[in-house]
Amino acid sequence: MSPIESAVKLEVVDAPGQPHPTPELAELYRGLEVESLVPLWTEIGDLMPGAPDSSAVAHLWRWKHLLALAERTGDLVPVGRGGERRVLALANPGLGGRPFATPTLWAAIQYLKPFEDAPVHRHTQHAFRFVVEGEGVWTVVNGDPVAMRRGDFLPQAGWNWHGHHNVSSEPMAWIDGLDIPFARHVESTFFEFGPDEIEQRESPERSRSERLWAHPGLRPLTQLGPAAATPLLAYRWEHTDRALDEQLALEAEGYTATLEPGHAAIRYVNPTSGGDVMRTLRAEFHRLAPDTRTATRREVGSSVFQVFDGGGTVDVGGRRWDVERGDLFVVPSWQPFAAETAEGLDLFRFSDAPIIERLDLDRVEVEGTTP
Amino acid sequence: MSPIESAVKLEVVDAPGQPHPTPELAELYRGLEVESLVPLWTEIGDLMPGAPDSSAVAHLWRWKHLLALAERTGDLVPVGRGGERRVLALANPGLGGRPFATPTLWAAIQYLKPFEDAPVHRHTQHAFRFVVEGEGVWTVVNGDPVAMRRGDFLPQAGWNWHGHHNVSSEPMAWIDGLDIPFARHVESTFFEFGPDEIEQRESPERSRSERLWAHPGLRPLTQLGPAAATPLLAYRWEHTDRALDEQLALEAEGYTATLEPGHAAIRYVNPTSGGDVMRTLRAEFHRLAPDTRTATRREVGSSVFQVFDGGGTVDVGGRRWDVERGDLFVVPSWQPFAAETAEGLDLFRFSDAPIIERLDLDRVEVEGTTP
Amino acid sequence: MSPIESAVKLEVVDAPGQPHPTPELAELYRGLEVESLVPLWTEIGDLMPGAPDSSAVAHLWRWKHLLALAERTGDLVPVGRGGERRVLALANPGLGGRPFATPTLWAAIQYLKPFEDAPVHRHTQHAFRFVVEGEGVWTVVNGDPVAMRRGDFLPQAGWNWHGHHNVSSEPMAWIDGLDIPFARHVESTFFEFGPDEIEQRESPERSRSERLWAHPGLRPLTQLGPAAATPLLAYRWEHTDRALDEQLALEAEGYTATLEPGHAAIRYVNPTSGGDVMRTLRAEFHRLAPDTRTATRREVGSSVFQVFDGGGTVDVGGRRWDVERGDLFVVPSWQPFAAETAEGLDLFRFSDAPIIERLDLDRVEVEGTTP
Amino acid sequence: MSPIESAVKLEVVDAPGQPHPTPELAELYRGLEVESLVPLWTEIGDLMPGAPDSSAVAHLWRWKHLLALAERTGDLVPVGRGGERRVLALANPGLGGRPFATPTLWAAIQYLKPFEDAPVHRHTQHAFRFVVEGEGVWTVVNGDPVAMRRGDFLPQAGWNWHGHHNVSSEPMAWIDGLDIPFARHVESTFFEFGPDEIEQRESPERSRSERLWAHPGLRPLTQLGPAAATPLLAYRWEHTDRALDEQLALEAEGYTATLEPGHAAIRYVNPTSGGDVMRTLRAEFHRLAPDTRTATRREVGSSVFQVFDGGGTVDVGGRRWDVERGDLFVVPSWQPFAAETAEGLDLFRFSDAPIIERLDLDRVEVEGTTP
Repeated sequence: MSPIESAVKLEVVDAPGQPHPTPELAELYRGLEVESLVPLWTEIGDLMPGAPDSSAVAHLWRWKHLLALAERTGDLVPVGRGGERRVLALANPGLGGRPFATPTLWAAIQYLKPFEDAPVHRHTQHAFRFVVEGEGVWTVVNGDPVAMRRGDFLPQAGWNWHGHHNVSSEPMAWIDGLDIPFARHVESTFFEFGPDEIEQRESPERSRSERLWAHPGLRPLTQLGPAAATPLLAYRWEHTDRALDEQLALEAEGYTATLEPGHAAIRYVNPTSGGDVMRTLRAEFHRLAPDTRTATRREVGSSVFQVFDGGGTVDVGGRRWDVERGDLFVVPSWQPFAAETAEGLDLFRFSDAPIIERLDLDRVEVEGTTP
Repeated sequence: MSPIESAVKLEVVDAPGQPHPTPELAELYRGLEVESLVPLWTEIGDLMPGAPDSSAVAHLWRWKHLLALAERTGDLVPVGRGGERRVLALANPGLGGRPFATPTLWAAIQYLKPFEDAPVHRHTQHAFRFVVEGEGVWTVVNGDPVAMRRGDFLPQAGWNWHGHHNVSSEPMAWIDGLDIPFARHVESTFFEFGPDEIEQRESPERSRSERLWAHPGLRPLTQLGPAAATPLLAYRWEHTDRALDEQLALEAEGYTATLEPGHAAIRYVNPTSGGDVMRTLRAEFHRLAPDTRTATRREVGSSVFQVFDGGGTVDVGGRRWDVERGDLFVVPSWQPFAAETAEGLDLFRFSDAPIIERLDLDRVEVEGTTP
Repeated sequence: MSPIESAVKLEVVDAPGQPHPTPELAELYRGLEVESLVPLWTEIGDLMPGAPDSSAVAHLWRWKHLLALAERTGDLVPVGRGGERRVLALANPGLGGRPFATPTLWAAIQYLKPFEDAPVHRHTQHAFRFVVEGEGVWTVVNGDPVAMRRGDFLPQAGWNWHGHHNVSSEPMAWIDGLDIPFARHVESTFFEFGPDEIEQRESPERSRSERLWAHPGLRPLTQLGPAAATPLLAYRWEHTDRALDEQLALEAEGYTATLEPGHAAIRYVNPTSGGDVMRTLRAEFHRLAPDTRTATRREVGSSVFQVFDGGGTVDVGGRRWDVERGDLFVVPSWQPFAAETAEGLDLFRFSDAPIIERLDLDRVEVEGTTP
Repeated sequence: MSPIESAVKLEVVDAPGQPHPTPELAELYRGLEVESLVPLWTEIGDLMPGAPDSSAVAHLWRWKHLLALAERTGDLVPVGRGGERRVLALANPGLGGRPFATPTLWAAIQYLKPFEDAPVHRHTQHAFRFVVEGEGVWTVVNGDPVAMRRGDFLPQAGWNWHGHHNVSSEPMAWIDGLDIPFARHVESTFFEFGPDEIEQRESPERSRSERLWAHPGLRPLTQLGPAAATPLLAYRWEHTDRALDEQLALEAEGYTATLEPGHAAIRYVNPTSGGDVMRTLRAEFHRLAPDTRTATRREVGSSVFQVFDGGGTVDVGGRRWDVERGDLFVVPSWQPFAAETAEGLDLFRFSDAPIIERLDLDRVEVEGTTP
């Protein structure tokens, strides 16, 4: 028998689909416990549901509460080596108090006070920052300082050195998205500390990565090989905003450009491949014109949304919320989602779709279409 | 505030790397609990270890114990609609009594008595069968009856209808491998019941899939498109055995053919791509010649091994076992593995490597090489 | 003006679609000639036809004539360094006497007398051998001796060293297929001489490449990387024959396995990818059961066929021939092809389809289907 | 014997490497002629050179001469249905007077007088326009009017409808690049006439394709599938110019951004893949800072260059020319190329590299590096 004690505990139950409860069965179960074995027939309902039945729940976090708690954290908790970041993670109420927005996704508010630094480290988890308001912080990625401003999407693929510093006299908060829960589950995570001090303290308007890469359809001849993660470190708001406006304008002129009437949407992509910015994370921006209602969709895989601007109502898995700037909500796997708005609604979204799609696990149902 | 109660419980602790414990901090933690938020600094050690620190443990299951319990299960537990299969799953002692061999892999012994059927169903989880001894069962995949015999590897990709029937007067046991724990984590699973009765009750020597596909380097012109999963439903022992023998013979003649001295190995592949048989599961067969010792390796991702023949000693993550025919053991992520044998050792292996590699999470360390 | 004289000669013509002939136009044409310029309007009909209008013609070469000439060549022409091979190439009558079967493909008969060698060289052109009758020659590829026997397909990807030697007391003839005309057109060809003597004079039943690779669905762990060309150097007749028989047997049992009724077909593929054996050449084998007629097809790209066994009638681009063992014929791009047989007909085929498909130039029309 | 007469003519010659001239050999050659066969030994030097020996020659066309002839053509030759375009093609002096700049590439000057139209058609050949000077013409691609201005690169992938119209009171000339010679060789070309009149006569600043696609790193959710050719119809000079300036500025700041000192370069790419804009054509822009000399390179495959701005000296395959704005020159396969400049030099380049690379035929030699 194994010196590591079995964790298996089996109970004979008198229920449909279960074997007839007898003393012999109870004895068999004792034997299975000793040998660290579990029957399928006691577990099949949980393991093999007819369709995904997420352990996460639809949930909303109000930006004003998040921000207030982040500010209070700024008063009480220093940022530095060891804790590494002043970060508060969304803990999905269905996931037992763990800091996981969904079974695969981490979402958090990060907060940096005036002139503070967050020290340099690197990890194999993929990350990004998205800024709903404020400015003044530069994130320094492999020595390249990248300004963070309202509306910017800033990917930070795994195993790149990075730290942040606030060069302004104002605090700044933003959201971080990572694949921490997924990486933890597949047990693939490495981590290293970098220098305690950020060495590149410049605060240029444009990062070097943008100067090399943010030219539509143009690629430097020095970097022609395939790159699993995007080399572009900042996707600026001015481009996102314009792309969405153009889609709605083209729709108004009578051309196909929007996902559905009144619903413009772009995906942030890796310019070396046209695919997702990182192997495990997808990021998109959706704009609903005034008086728009989306079709109800459900998809395998989970998402986190943040309201960037405007307001409206969202329906997620039977829950319904009025939302406004900064509010965050999760859509668990296979739960229906729809949004509607009178005034117009801008939504940032990230998800685990690249994992789902690369493994051919994707399914989508859209209201009003046949699958 | 959300009607779903927060599951977050935070405790102020006086420890290195933690903020100074004060009443204000305690009050902040109460606020975080109410809003379902968790700080990074209380979790970072668990979430971001320097290297993968598997929650699974190295563990061995003895075939003779498994088989005895499976036989006893045959006496007490019927197989049929609802429970679906007479299956006992390996429950890794590190994983809390859940029927998971590793965080991503399911491994189980399945048992069918003379003339019994296991009813038809389908699920998105990928599966395979591997036979260490016995014969007499045909697995019927989308209406194609496939014989199962010692040494055969029988992949069964997700969403194909399948049932099993024992046409002989002897019971038969084999192992099943699936990606159930992974699929459950990413919440991608669908399931459907098929007919209660298996309709194709023939017992041909070769399945139709083999007649179409088991010709080396030849592909039917009717099926030229890419296939995510292998269309070949049986990888017969005679081919595996011969391929391994040839590698050792070529080595003896002075050519490069083995992985390392005395260590022949093949991977089962999808003939339409040359890649893994299924999107989430890799399967291999390793043969150690007498008096061989492998280098110690560690890899991101987890594996399950079954001894097919011979005997020897295996070292896994600091544990060491003498093993013989049918014994099963797991190698958790990033734990070192080596094997040695005096008499010769045949090992079947399956792993989650396709998940790890498709997401660019793979790392390997091999004793005596520079990474 | 350039010191290299212009080769342009332009004539003023009075024809529909041409500019009005005037002395000024003639003077302009003189100016274009001096500057090495050619107008589109004099060339557009040739350059931009409504559909491909091959310069090659449908043509048949009789095996008995080829073989007789090859034997006579054996009497008169030695084989050795410089000429390199005793080879007679099919020269399509539409291609001006050049040794090109089609604009992209080379097809030839090669002949080796008892105990003769063809010296070692390598070239970037891709090649293969196919044997319609005879045996006794081993082709040695990078030091691996590969037997050549009736029905075998033997690919030899570019830049591999190779020579041939006849170990028997009988002469042997076979056909060679290469991409010489294509490679010449894109000017990509390199060539090197190897040793004058073949060093590996063994004559094993199976090559080392087969011992490593000819196991269906199994791949050696020593060679897991992608390979642009197949590592398998011999595709044996016994496998091809059996695969084709199985397709016809499955059809007779009521299953989908053949391309069309009575028409079995396999493609030779690279086991590391499931794709074509070489980047520029496709090879297939087609078997028509007795009393079968194929649908008429036309395809972008050209093919060469050799009758392997049986007999029948083929229709190519308006020509019609009765064919028998060994006869070779070409199907130029976009010319219709059909075959019919009373007694049964086995056809080997090779083509430039990988070029056409990798560049997305493929189109197919099949009689009785809508494109 | 075939009713199509053989085109083969063979001569017995008394030369090294050729068989001994005898009456018997002459008689054999007569037999080969009758059967449309050609020996390898008379052709091997031409077919299998040690390295590519291009039939094309290095050649320069002066823009001022091209433009003068194009203007004169404007006086004498109407544009309209049948001739389709007023185009003068560069005819490489090594290619026998055919309108081919290289064996694979077409390069031409096109000329449209004030308010003229070039009628709508489509063809499978891939095309682009590049503008060295002037403006006023809109090319209309599938109904989307695209402005053409100095410095713009305008790809037009095969099988898209297109016509051009000049909305200004000035004539305009530009260059066209196509894969006509390649497509003709592989016999893959289809062509269709469209309406005689261009229906979309708007002249917007930005095409609809740009409004959808010219946002760096952003992709519309309506078009997520893979696209073999770029959906972006205009690559504007302002972006190209800025990208090149940034590379030189980064180099000056001490970062790796240029191909070699003083040599900035971008490739135009398909935003859906990061690869070449079309399956057969590559386009790049190179900027040499003042007082720069490139390394000498040679590559398999051929290129055409046009001087966009500045001046300098180019060396191609042993020829040497001083060049200025608008001049065009070809670099045949495997011929060495270098450029140097005192004042600065901007070069547009296109090539057949995607063909060469997709078929794994690429080789490069760069002066001062080991291959």
